[in-house]
Amino acid sequence: MPKQFIALLEDDLSTFQATLLRVKGAPFLPPIVITNHEFRFIVAEQMQAVGVEGQIVLEPERRDSAAAIAVGALLASRVAPDAVAVALAADHVVENAPAFRADALAAAKFAATGLIVTLGIVPTAPSVAYGYIEAGEALGDARTKRLKRFVEKPDAATAQGYLDRGFLWNSGNFVFAAPTMIEELTRFAPDVIAAAREALDGATTDLDFIRLDGRAFSQAPRISIDYAVMEKTQHAGVIAAGFDWSDIGAWDSIHEVMDKDGAGNVLRGPVVALDTTNSLLRSDDMLLTTIGLTDMVVVATRDAVLVASKSAAPHVKQLVETLKQQGRPEATEHLRIYRPWGWYQRIDIGSRFQVKRINVKPGAKLSLQKHFHRSEHWVVVRGTAEVTLDGSISHIHENESIYLPIGCTHRLCNPGKIELELIEVQVGSYTGEDDIIRIEDIYARA
Amino acid sequence: MPKQFIALLEDDLSTFQATLLRVKGAPFLPPIVITNHEFRFIVAEQMQAVGVEGQIVLEPERRDSAAAIAVGALLASRVAPDAVAVALAADHVVENAPAFRADALAAAKFAATGLIVTLGIVPTAPSVAYGYIEAGEALGDARTKRLKRFVEKPDAATAQGYLDRGFLWNSGNFVFAAPTMIEELTRFAPDVIAAAREALDGATTDLDFIRLDGRAFSQAPRISIDYAVMEKTQHAGVIAAGFDWSDIGAWDSIHEVMDKDGAGNVLRGPVVALDTTNSLLRSDDMLLTTIGLTDMVVVATRDAVLVASKSAAPHVKQLVETLKQQGRPEATEHLRIYRPWGWYQRIDIGSRFQVKRINVKPGAKLSLQKHFHRSEHWVVVRGTAEVTLDGSISHIHENESIYLPIGCTHRLCNPGKIELELIEVQVGSYTGEDDIIRIEDIYARA
Repeated sequence: MPKQFIALLEDDLSTFQATLLRVKGAPFLPPIVITNHEFRFIVAEQMQAVGVEGQIVLEPERRDSAAAIAVGALLASRVAPDAVAVALAADHVVENAPAFRADALAAAKFAATGLIVTLGIVPTAPSVAYGYIEAGEALGDARTKRLKRFVEKPDAATAQGYLDRGFLWNSGNFVFAAPTMIEELTRFAPDVIAAAREALDGATTDLDFIRLDGRAFSQAPRISIDYAVMEKTQHAGVIAAGFDWSDIGAWDSIHEVMDKDGAGNVLRGPVVALDTTNSLLRSDDMLLTTIGLTDMVVVATRDAVLVASKSAAPHVKQLVETLKQQGRPEATEHLRIYRPWGWYQRIDIGSRFQVKRINVKPGAKLSLQKHFHRSEHWVVVRGTAEVTLDGSISHIHENESIYLPIGCTHRLCNPGKIELELIEVQVGSYTGEDDIIRIEDIYARA
Repeated sequence: MPKQFIALLEDDLSTFQATLLRVKGAPFLPPIVITNHEFRFIVAEQMQAVGVEGQIVLEPERRDSAAAIAVGALLASRVAPDAVAVALAADHVVENAPAFRADALAAAKFAATGLIVTLGIVPTAPSVAYGYIEAGEALGDARTKRLKRFVEKPDAATAQGYLDRGFLWNSGNFVFAAPTMIEELTRFAPDVIAAAREALDGATTDLDFIRLDGRAFSQAPRISIDYAVMEKTQHAGVIAAGFDWSDIGAWDSIHEVMDKDGAGNVLRGPVVALDTTNSLLRSDDMLLTTIGLTDMVVVATRDAVLVASKSAAPHVKQLVETLKQQGRPEATEHLRIYRPWGWYQRIDIGSRFQVKRINVKPGAKLSLQKHFHRSEHWVVVRGTAEVTLDGSISHIHENESIYLPIGCTHRLCNPGKIELELIEVQVGSYTGEDDIIRIEDIYARA
């Protein structure tokens, strides 16, 4: 699962949720969330969990940040022609939300005058992990200046030089008026804004989602907003932010931002560490034990375990690429699969069977469906299930079960006020997820 | 699970099984296996799997090696008054079985004359992990000598000195005539031999097991055979063994004895290692991924993960102690629990339910039992179950299920020719293993 949706830090919130909360309430309007369609249900679930409503825009495929910001700017301009927008990444950590809001509002004043204001971060160390910004003349506010130039991630010596000269880190978050961004995109990246506009014109509304037109969106060049606009525009500003920030680009930076114990360790979950220092140790479920580790990252989940030296942590992406090349499902499939109605998780699999734990939200309803290759046994372990089986409806309570023979038409829903939890035992020659014929679906998946 | 029962090395055999096979067939008689009663079913299962029959003696509690060897010597003397015995640890690795057999038989000739012959190992390095033996005068065979003295595990400098002087490693395996060992125990450790004799006299036979009398056996002092006899006897010899040997005392020595890839790694199971060298990486089930490791040991099972620097691997025992003190079940319970009828494994647990996968051998029969706090749902996913439910018998086939209400008397057996596999969903206020009232049991557990 992408890291922005995982509660990596102290507070049981994902960074996506923390980002939503940071801009919740006036003077901020409800957010426009732009995400890959694959993550639509987890996005909706996590927004609901923190009580944030907003538009959810689904990208049929990833086209990098210029296209996403183009779509956001166009949608913001529909809300108000001169709307000022804050473009935020969902995987950044900000430790002081009030300071963030104050800075965003300060930047918004300059944005309203036609500047695209980057949130620049006052460096705490000569990091080689971030790009830098050189600021120019002041703009009538001690912290807000014209943006002179962006510089790429430096080597260590160069980074120290940047610090000495007062450069800022480039957080990749921006504040701008929608018309300014649209104008600059039209000037410097006309293909991007055209594709975004057409994808929005052809968008369909599907439940709470705005689904961009796939053919149109695929025409957007894959380019970041930095390359497409920020390095070219004459209207760039930068504010020296007053909040602590990290982009949690890798596990080592997660270790850095979290509170550590006396040995410099961050331990989360069932972890027992002997003679271990300066390490991040995290387990969702299984017991994790360590002896004699220094500067390590260990992340254990029920389907995969990662062990990395902290200095190698930035190479996790390369590891994931290797896994994909090898066709490993762990690289692309998540253990707990979120759906609009709740989630399911495989708990066992054998040659002709599979066992799943299924959790259905109160009031939720799965599709009316059938399978060609498997029968299913459902045992309710919590709540009450309403089961439609070949047209007849019955209620299955805790500690009751029902058998769904191969080929039958069936549907599961939770008519109750508490979560419905059941164990599903599938038996058949093939138990793959694609043996599902949806006949009817309230979530428009039929 | 104790390491002697795990297939740690190349060949899918546990070291216990490899030890059995090393002495299988004439001139060796069937083995006497002495084990803690807790491991009786896994011992029986593993012996059966490699086609070795023998006596299985159950220790009600651990009393160290002198008591175990006393019991073994007494039992050997029942087979033949002058029987020669080879005492072998179950967790040692020997790479050349024919050489081992030749050495054991060579030692047996001296044992028949009244010597207790230690299998000494020609050191391959100045190890500080082993005790050493200084040999004395030759005994008419270039490799067999009188044993001059034992020396404790040395520091590195001392170890090099021992190597230079031709000392041998003490493998802790011995060859002796039963009467010699009984006589020496009677002389130097009379409490041990008396307790062993009484424990055998009071032993009960339970299925294929000889269960030592618990009260009598508990009187045996906890002492090793080295301290009790070997350091005192005038009749000790040592043979310089012609086989490669390791005691796999810790994971680092397992790494040492196994074949390594070009990067010095030993990988077993679903493991993907990037930029990783000289490490032992093993996973039973989950995907294990590593980046940037050197000299590490990672062992991942479904209930626990161990990550250790190789130099810290010998401290696993201390870790297990810590886990026990914290009351962690992983320290004492194994994920897959072996029973005389087969095995079960927990696959999921929640606040009021538990799910298990149960595997019953052909012809096997569980106890007639009932539970006070839980109902059970059984779904057969392979084979056929014969279920007795409050006196009436029914057959449940693949893809069929049965419900066992709370408080009912029930029994499961496998009347078929293939393994029976079923998914058990327990629902109730308490699903602990101790809520089981056994009414009748063919394995004498009622």
